[in-house]
Amino acid sequence: MSEQIPARADEAFPTDPADPRDVPHMRRAIALAARGLGTTSPNPVVGCVVLDAAASVVGEGFHAYAGGPHAEVVALREAGERARGGTAYVTLEPCNHTGRTGPCAEALLAAGVARVVVAVTDPNPVAAGGVTRLRERGVRVDTGVLTEEAERGNAAWLTSVRARRPYVTWKFAATLDGRSAAEDGTSKWITSPEARSDVHRLRAECDAVVAGIGTVLADDPLLTARPSGEAEPPERLPLRVVVDSDGRIPAGARVLSGPAPTLVAVASDVDVPPHLRDVVRLPRTPYGLDLRALLAELHRRQVVSVLLEGGPRLAGSFVREGLVDRVVGYLAPALLGAGAAALGPAGVATIGEIHRLEIEDVTPIGPDLRVVLRPGGRQGSGSAAASLRPAPSKEN
Amino acid sequence: MSEQIPARADEAFPTDPADPRDVPHMRRAIALAARGLGTTSPNPVVGCVVLDAAASVVGEGFHAYAGGPHAEVVALREAGERARGGTAYVTLEPCNHTGRTGPCAEALLAAGVARVVVAVTDPNPVAAGGVTRLRERGVRVDTGVLTEEAERGNAAWLTSVRARRPYVTWKFAATLDGRSAAEDGTSKWITSPEARSDVHRLRAECDAVVAGIGTVLADDPLLTARPSGEAEPPERLPLRVVVDSDGRIPAGARVLSGPAPTLVAVASDVDVPPHLRDVVRLPRTPYGLDLRALLAELHRRQVVSVLLEGGPRLAGSFVREGLVDRVVGYLAPALLGAGAAALGPAGVATIGEIHRLEIEDVTPIGPDLRVVLRPGGRQGSGSAAASLRPAPSKEN
Repeated sequence: MSEQIPARADEAFPTDPADPRDVPHMRRAIALAARGLGTTSPNPVVGCVVLDAAASVVGEGFHAYAGGPHAEVVALREAGERARGGTAYVTLEPCNHTGRTGPCAEALLAAGVARVVVAVTDPNPVAAGGVTRLRERGVRVDTGVLTEEAERGNAAWLTSVRARRPYVTWKFAATLDGRSAAEDGTSKWITSPEARSDVHRLRAECDAVVAGIGTVLADDPLLTARPSGEAEPPERLPLRVVVDSDGRIPAGARVLSGPAPTLVAVASDVDVPPHLRDVVRLPRTPYGLDLRALLAELHRRQVVSVLLEGGPRLAGSFVREGLVDRVVGYLAPALLGAGAAALGPAGVATIGEIHRLEIEDVTPIGPDLRVVLRPGGRQGSGSAAASLRPAPSKEN
Repeated sequence: MSEQIPARADEAFPTDPADPRDVPHMRRAIALAARGLGTTSPNPVVGCVVLDAAASVVGEGFHAYAGGPHAEVVALREAGERARGGTAYVTLEPCNHTGRTGPCAEALLAAGVARVVVAVTDPNPVAAGGVTRLRERGVRVDTGVLTEEAERGNAAWLTSVRARRPYVTWKFAATLDGRSAAEDGTSKWITSPEARSDVHRLRAECDAVVAGIGTVLADDPLLTARPSGEAEPPERLPLRVVVDSDGRIPAGARVLSGPAPTLVAVASDVDVPPHLRDVVRLPRTPYGLDLRALLAELHRRQVVSVLLEGGPRLAGSFVREGLVDRVVGYLAPALLGAGAAALGPAGVATIGEIHRLEIEDVTPIGPDLRVVLRPGGRQGSGSAAASLRPAPSKEN
């Protein structure tokens, strides 16, 4: 399944559903899909590769932004008449409904495609049905090719649809001994400029950035996405969310300035400060605000992916509640020996209650190390992603 | 000898000291040397490759144990008459003194070797002089080939000779958030069996294992090296050292049992408990015992390399004093959010005082991550290794 089989473009297109010649085309479609990360929300990312009847690639496409053409339509447009009798590889089941664009199943039928290969069937009841529709019209449809890989690429959107809450990535930066600040509270800078730039890329891929009031009061961050190399502010402005149980955020906080919107979550028993425009009132729990209620509100606002930036107490509460789907840790090769820990109380009193994860990727970022992890088999986070197994660290 | 440099590796051996054809032979010699790690102490590790006059490899050797034959002797024995007119690659300057074995410079002369290539010249005044002796007798000697790589392989011994103290490796095992135990003190097991087995390998490579009394009282460890797959106890029994300022170690502590020797370091103002056989009394400092005095005592006992196993307070004191030459961290993909930190106070009050390191290697060990680091350029640890630059992560 995961073996690397050289695909001979000059052979006839494969007919065996487990045919290894499907793999490189679907992998290419998954790579195309990833180009849409950060701009398709609340839609999924989708990639499509179209072969002609002789199994030559004649069209490629991906869904680039919500409201824009779907991947299949882009690829079929490039293929034109050459799609007739050919094969379409799609990372997600083609839609069968008319949303902002027409149904892709009809577009594939109109193009005369003979076979459609699908990685992931659509869990969204509104959009599903494309496979059935195609089969009814005599198109051969094979599913299950690189499903796990494609699910991983769409983890945020799948979590949103299946768990009806945003996909949560907890990002932290710490020394090797797990500290995010020195004893006196100073923390600029533990990690490198390269790592900080990578964080801006992460932010730009998410719909919302969440931080606790402690972080806002201590660091006064902007919490905007400023990927390096972009002189102009990016068009996407992730929603900034401050978890501020007691409504302590000052009117002059930078997180309240600038063009990106800011939502402040306060406890329902608190008087809302008059300088706040967008506020959600949430129940209190013994560990702070009700985070499931917060995520429900974000889901209602079509937030598919959340980047949780701390501080330690808020991160601990998310971990305690099993609401972290992915951890991205930037580890600086440095030691502090004292100062604030990256993670605060997370409901673990004894070693048997430890939160186990699995390492998915380790990459040097400048002098630092970026480690990406997902919840492991021993704990469930309640999310779709929790059941995914770790991907191979890298191709090759 | 002064002819034009042949262009092909299969022609006569190279004569240019910077000749790239020297590199693979010296790299091989360095790899051979590494086989002696853990068994040559207090001697260095040394590897040797001998080519014949036509540049074919005819002998290989390494120094396997103190008192055993030197690398040059082993390689020359294999080469026999074919060494005449050939080249010897040696990772360390051949000795010119008669210790437990005869001088290697004489062995090279007797074998009729025409050229000797040396990676590192010997800083030990007793053993040095081999290069001079060889040159006096008309042998061409080139130095400086892969010096950094060879120094790294001999870092412990070079630190011992140059700094007159053992080379200190601090090993820790922690969660991703830097904790070595849960809130209630339980810590079995944070890391995997594979990681724990790797620690036994580390111990077996060192001459002494050092732990604080807190660790001894909490975990009652044996602190012996039990590399996996060895049914019999290994012949090497690293000295166990307990730093116990107030002489609190109980008579029944496991670290006092078994065949490996145990040294207990207490403060000079403390009454030595009668159940201790081997004790060193050391001055107190504001942060515990005088660790430089401890290392001086270990140096006196021919301890070349020390594995520091914590706990956090003792590790913090070593880091504060700049006495850590290498850090080996086993990071479990897990989160605790509370509990003892891997590293205690290390003299850092504000971010500008952070102890910077450089990552030398990152390797998955079972589900865990092993990260190896050395002191970085911004702080000196006072050791020979501190000036070394990080090695390439892996050879392909």
